[in-house]
Amino acid sequence: MRGAVIHAPGDVRFETVDDAKILKPTDAVIRTAVTCVCGSDLWPYRGAEPTEQAHPMGHEYVGFVEEVGAEVTAFEPGQFVVGSFATSDNTCANCRNGFQSSCLNREFMSTCQAEYVRIPNAQGTLVATDGTPDEKFWPGLLAVSDVMGTGWWAAEAAEVRPGSTAVVVGDGAVGLCAVIAAKEMGAERIIVMSRHEPRQKLAREFGATDIVTERGEEGVARIKELTNGIGADSVLECVGTAQAMRQALHSARPGGGVGFVGVPHEVAVDGRELFFSHVGLRGGPAPVRRYLPDLIDRVLTGRIDPGKVFDLTLPLDQVAEGYRAMDERRAIKALLKP
Amino acid sequence: MRGAVIHAPGDVRFETVDDAKILKPTDAVIRTAVTCVCGSDLWPYRGAEPTEQAHPMGHEYVGFVEEVGAEVTAFEPGQFVVGSFATSDNTCANCRNGFQSSCLNREFMSTCQAEYVRIPNAQGTLVATDGTPDEKFWPGLLAVSDVMGTGWWAAEAAEVRPGSTAVVVGDGAVGLCAVIAAKEMGAERIIVMSRHEPRQKLAREFGATDIVTERGEEGVARIKELTNGIGADSVLECVGTAQAMRQALHSARPGGGVGFVGVPHEVAVDGRELFFSHVGLRGGPAPVRRYLPDLIDRVLTGRIDPGKVFDLTLPLDQVAEGYRAMDERRAIKALLKP
Repeated sequence: MRGAVIHAPGDVRFETVDDAKILKPTDAVIRTAVTCVCGSDLWPYRGAEPTEQAHPMGHEYVGFVEEVGAEVTAFEPGQFVVGSFATSDNTCANCRNGFQSSCLNREFMSTCQAEYVRIPNAQGTLVATDGTPDEKFWPGLLAVSDVMGTGWWAAEAAEVRPGSTAVVVGDGAVGLCAVIAAKEMGAERIIVMSRHEPRQKLAREFGATDIVTERGEEGVARIKELTNGIGADSVLECVGTAQAMRQALHSARPGGGVGFVGVPHEVAVDGRELFFSHVGLRGGPAPVRRYLPDLIDRVLTGRIDPGKVFDLTLPLDQVAEGYRAMDERRAIKALLKP
Repeated sequence: MRGAVIHAPGDVRFETVDDAKILKPTDAVIRTAVTCVCGSDLWPYRGAEPTEQAHPMGHEYVGFVEEVGAEVTAFEPGQFVVGSFATSDNTCANCRNGFQSSCLNREFMSTCQAEYVRIPNAQGTLVATDGTPDEKFWPGLLAVSDVMGTGWWAAEAAEVRPGSTAVVVGDGAVGLCAVIAAKEMGAERIIVMSRHEPRQKLAREFGATDIVTERGEEGVARIKELTNGIGADSVLECVGTAQAMRQALHSARPGGGVGFVGVPHEVAVDGRELFFSHVGLRGGPAPVRRYLPDLIDRVLTGRIDPGKVFDLTLPLDQVAEGYRAMDERRAIKALLKP
């Protein structure tokens, strides 16, 4: 079969790779319906994370069950399934606590930009839809497997409440999905920090009420202006840089919450500053599995359409162009069709 | 009048100081009923915080209203009042959000180890009891003005829930009060990290179910053993050192919460580690004013007795001995009687 492999920063190739197959009785193999490139894939692509040796890429997927291992009893070949970028048995203590992305048997997905994908922990990771959904829903369901689930987690971790004010830091696909989540959770005011016109437009479509184009301390000052000098109830940090985290912490009001969902790169939080800010801070890889049934339902009933974050569709064999377009910010997110 | 003044590390003197008086129409002056020495007073006493010039000490108090400013209409001379170490107008946006210790007009108390005390923002800071409480309740009410309120906040910030497991890091007066709070909030299991027998005893009296004497990573390993390898639902960090914070973060389960209420000294939290831990982190100066009516009621009805943390009572003029006894860990907390 063929799939995407990163050889070095800037060098992603679509090439022959080992066939996806059942390695453990808890595995399934799916035939990819659609997959995509993630903002986090750009870290190694840009050399911000090392690529010691060539390896497959991709962790977002929806597809058709091709084969299941002996212990996978809940699924059968042909079913359309949505999963999470973090696999989980959905039975351990952490899973029962609702943190499936900290499952004791967790394996992160990493080979999804391919024609077929092996899914570890299939029984506890996948959710099948009722029949095969209309193709128009596939992008939305694909978004649910990562960026929409992650945006939802950002809003939950930042404790978005009905009637509250939420700030979203980051206008990538996760940030845009975080706008959807904040809106669904009842935020009355949703302020998005963005300086890219097409993203601002989509943010407004998703429910943003205000756009702030300033960054850093200027951006913080603007947030304060918009919130009677106090700061926002909730801030959803969807980038992962030290600057974004600082901006997020400074934009929240005393007693407010910051949810951070971008994998932090060289971020350190000063204890004394956090103390006197009174801000609550919670982040991590999104427990997407917990949200799957609900988010799949919201997509299939047309209540939300996170699939709109895909503004570029390519055949899977042009995956390299997907990386380039996102790296150059020509595209928010690239959908890949096998 | 006379009060405690710190001149240098290890050098606290009881001496003549400026009389407490009304400086603003929002002030009150109280005659001290009882006051005390706080664990946080030991930071400058031990030289861990600089003492640039001699200054008064103390931020815990209960007393009798002596005089009120023109804008203080809720109180009259003779009333017995309890306040917070952080004064608040109790009307600003932060106060309305329940974070009175981030009041826009906040002034921290700092002159309470004295015969009389000026209380800024008196109207929004003080709560009067119904008549003068029996003297046996004074220590408990004094504890409410800081350590009991702070322990309560630790439990709230760590999101203690009925039936949950809570770990308390620190066996000082705040840690011991945090045990009371965790118990009142319904924690089923309360594990206290302590290696001091008298404190262990009091912790058990307050509701601790387990004592862990190990520290650092050994202590964390012991907590993991006691929690099926997962960690605690809530950890209440009541120290403020880098070691205590690390211990707290490592003791919480994925998705658990850490409340930190010791003012952090050289504490930095690694973003990536916090991210992958899935732990929520919230701290700050306790919003004691929010808790006052409830905690005063719990003390006066005999439901809780945080006054037990005072294991040394001294005349106010022997305040220096109170510092010495606490510094040498001969006393948990010293009560001072004018």
